[in-house]
Amino acid sequence: MPERVGNRLRAQYGQGMTQAPILVVTTGGTIDKQYFDALSEYQIAESVIDKMLKTSRVAHPFRVIELLRKDSLELTDEDRALIAATIANAPERHVVITHGTDTMTETAAALAHIEGKTIVLCGALAPARFAESDAAFNLGMAFGCCQSASPGVWITMSGTVFDGLKVRKDREAGKFVAR
Amino acid sequence: MPERVGNRLRAQYGQGMTQAPILVVTTGGTIDKQYFDALSEYQIAESVIDKMLKTSRVAHPFRVIELLRKDSLELTDEDRALIAATIANAPERHVVITHGTDTMTETAAALAHIEGKTIVLCGALAPARFAESDAAFNLGMAFGCCQSASPGVWITMSGTVFDGLKVRKDREAGKFVAR
Amino acid sequence: MPERVGNRLRAQYGQGMTQAPILVVTTGGTIDKQYFDALSEYQIAESVIDKMLKTSRVAHPFRVIELLRKDSLELTDEDRALIAATIANAPERHVVITHGTDTMTETAAALAHIEGKTIVLCGALAPARFAESDAAFNLGMAFGCCQSASPGVWITMSGTVFDGLKVRKDREAGKFVAR
Amino acid sequence: MPERVGNRLRAQYGQGMTQAPILVVTTGGTIDKQYFDALSEYQIAESVIDKMLKTSRVAHPFRVIELLRKDSLELTDEDRALIAATIANAPERHVVITHGTDTMTETAAALAHIEGKTIVLCGALAPARFAESDAAFNLGMAFGCCQSASPGVWITMSGTVFDGLKVRKDREAGKFVAR
Repeated sequence: MPERVGNRLRAQYGQGMTQAPILVVTTGGTIDKQYFDALSEYQIAESVIDKMLKTSRVAHPFRVIELLRKDSLELTDEDRALIAATIANAPERHVVITHGTDTMTETAAALAHIEGKTIVLCGALAPARFAESDAAFNLGMAFGCCQSASPGVWITMSGTVFDGLKVRKDREAGKFVAR
Repeated sequence: MPERVGNRLRAQYGQGMTQAPILVVTTGGTIDKQYFDALSEYQIAESVIDKMLKTSRVAHPFRVIELLRKDSLELTDEDRALIAATIANAPERHVVITHGTDTMTETAAALAHIEGKTIVLCGALAPARFAESDAAFNLGMAFGCCQSASPGVWITMSGTVFDGLKVRKDREAGKFVAR
Repeated sequence: MPERVGNRLRAQYGQGMTQAPILVVTTGGTIDKQYFDALSEYQIAESVIDKMLKTSRVAHPFRVIELLRKDSLELTDEDRALIAATIANAPERHVVITHGTDTMTETAAALAHIEGKTIVLCGALAPARFAESDAAFNLGMAFGCCQSASPGVWITMSGTVFDGLKVRKDREAGKFVAR
Repeated sequence: MPERVGNRLRAQYGQGMTQAPILVVTTGGTIDKQYFDALSEYQIAESVIDKMLKTSRVAHPFRVIELLRKDSLELTDEDRALIAATIANAPERHVVITHGTDTMTETAAALAHIEGKTIVLCGALAPARFAESDAAFNLGMAFGCCQSASPGVWITMSGTVFDGLKVRKDREAGKFVAR
């Protein structure tokens, strides 16, 4: 690790940090959808990531950047450039991104040029606020993967760690499959 | 992979299987605790693993062996030998074990001699049947880790992927820490 | 109770029935909303009433009629006539209706002419499928009210048993208030 | 209502109060049981009533007295005298008591002499902290019943509003039945 990066990490997380910290970037998607009765519709709301990590009793050092609140179908090239720049400039080498599922693979491609970091995208098919959701499991997979896998871009959905560049969402079947 | 193992995997999971399957071994622990009103007490009950993997929309090939239903403080050397033999003899190379947290590290040590398999132990500090539990996240971490990490024994608790031989539970603090 | 009605109840619920049975009529509304990932939107789905009553360990005799699956803003005069006829013709004297919250009071007015029955409308501001929802509590209020209150039409929302003809929804405040 | 009582209510809830307020007395029981990992056992913990009433979006005026934290099998005659005195001396005429299920009927008998108040006991067979519990529904029933029923002592369990003096718990069947 370059000394400069080590200094930034110590400044962020403290001198005593012994575990490599994780950067969590939230961009919106189903995982964060809330129901608004006054509108009779669901919208992406304040991210549930902090609450999920607390419920999951995560003691690992991490920080959360709530970067975007968009359905992934609405993400633009500029949004993807912003995500890439945010990650490239951060001192953390382990990165989790929460993201809508429909264009997750496009964002994976936009991050493929970043070197030396293990980046994992995940999301959910049912909002995390539901009693029955895949959100906590998928987020856990991403935490496990970003600490274990080689540098590169990965997607953790449907119980599988996918190469982020060799996967697609099967919308009808409601799952991710290798391609 | 030896041809013999490949044949057993294909017999178990079908010819078309393209992803390396995961063996899930349940041994009891807090994660599976249920409340029994007629007894006014909690006991380890039917494992919730199947329900959790269904809720988490896992499409990855896996099978579950409900091997034991014990508090981990009650596990004997014979129990650990049984766990080790079950895993050593299984065709799967990726293994997740759900386990009580108090003696998780002892079981990790009892599995250290198994070669060529990525074995991940996880559990929960609050039962999976609770509305707020670390169970789904920890199980997700184990699924992510067992597909990403090198062969060996790992523990995924408190948000961290620990080397299974270099970790201890801090009972008072309610978390796992490296040692 | 007229002999004819008693015969119909015994035919429905068995000779040994000792508690006055409850008819539950579902009409849709937020309480039954599910998220459909393939559509990226929420829609009213199969009613959750049966699951809620099972989770709530209801041993009281009841039957459920899934009559409509509509947002209450879409309910027509014909729909309300159908609801009224269904209840008027049923043998049960205790009735719970699950209903969207926006026009609950209009349906209450359309049921005001039914005599000799205690009818309670309830719904939810957050879908029952959410981990945090008012659905189970509101449904419980309706079960408690329909067995305790005098014949008439009642609404159980926001923790209060309201006279169904003297209440309105305060959409901005997200609660029902007496008027 | 005696003028004196009206004054006490207005002092407690404000001049503008238009709905009869509800007193909630918590005494412990399964409904409030929490799991303590460091002890490997469940104990009655801080009451979940406030959180449940917030999740249920209760706007009705109420106040909560956390009076006892006991398994109902441990309740003494002195405890029951304390519960009775607390309710008799409170200005509210509508009272909900959360209580362990095993001796709920004994406490009901100890409250039978209180006149002019509608008192409803409820509890749960599964802790409220469980994802699947009867707690919210039963508490809702009690809120609905205490506003609708005649003065007296009632028990709302298993989906039924029972006369508190004519009911027993069938421990094996896991439900309350009329006697």
